Amino acid sequence: MSDCPLCRSDGGLLLFRDDFLRLVRVLDTPDHPAFYRVILNRHVAEFSQLPAGERLRLMEAVATVERLLLAELSPAKVNLASLGNVVPHLHWHVIARFADDAQFPAPIWATAQRQRDTTALCAALPALDRLLGAELAGLAGQSV
Amino acid sequence: MSDCPLCRSDGGLLLFRDDFLRLVRVLDTPDHPAFYRVILNRHVAEFSQLPAGERLRLMEAVATVERLLLAELSPAKVNLASLGNVVPHLHWHVIARFADDAQFPAPIWATAQRQRDTTALCAALPALDRLLGAELAGLAGQSV
Repeated sequence: MSDCPLCRSDGGLLLFRDDFLRLVRVLDTPDHPAFYRVILNRHVAEFSQLPAGERLRLMEAVATVERLLLAELSPAKVNLASLGNVVPHLHWHVIARFADDAQFPAPIWATAQRQRDTTALCAALPALDRLLGAELAGLAGQSV
Repeated sequence: MSDCPLCRSDGGLLLFRDDFLRLVRVLDTPDHPAFYRVILNRHVAEFSQLPAGERLRLMEAVATVERLLLAELSPAKVNLASLGNVVPHLHWHVIARFADDAQFPAPIWATAQRQRDTTALCAALPALDRLLGAELAGLAGQSV
């Protein structure tokens, strides 16, 4: 799909890739720096269009990212979403949410209610990125 | 959790329930009538806190609902989300989206861009509700 941005590019800071999926950190949501995407490599629009084994493999990657976000960042909540209205190429948003973030407790797509200083959170992300990459590599190894 | 609305009540129009999960249609989002929720019966906040087998069982129910929404309503897209910032009791939103709906292509939590007449869509939902209930009952039968 030559006009699909997730076919043409990684879609963020690439942290892990195998033959099936990749993990990126989203760099264009400054209010929500701890925003990751698990992206299916091939172009499929809807989750239910995957075979069951691939749904399982994809969601285990999503759960792994969520688990590490919870462990390393102690967010108030992790949000998961597969929307794809603008880019109908299957990708899962995995977003660490904090009680003082711009929209909490509303979804990140709602109107901002406040501003916060994300300096400390941003500083923690490169180490988390490395952990996430290593953990997904381990998960991929198990599934071979 | 006596103060949790999803422990105290069904959380919508109940279409299916077994020992593990239930499916409801959400009745308080008039702009988005084809809005369903797959809800874990017990109180767990985060997807990754479930055992892997339960994650699989939950997501197969979500995929089943999505598949039927695609087949029966021909939406532009189905949106899936597990947020839980307000009610941290694991539940999956499964929402049929249409090109002329209030926010499309933005998420349903964004500011409305237009109004539409949902009369015909609403009229189709009782038949879909029955299909969804029957399909989830079949899925539950397979997993026994």
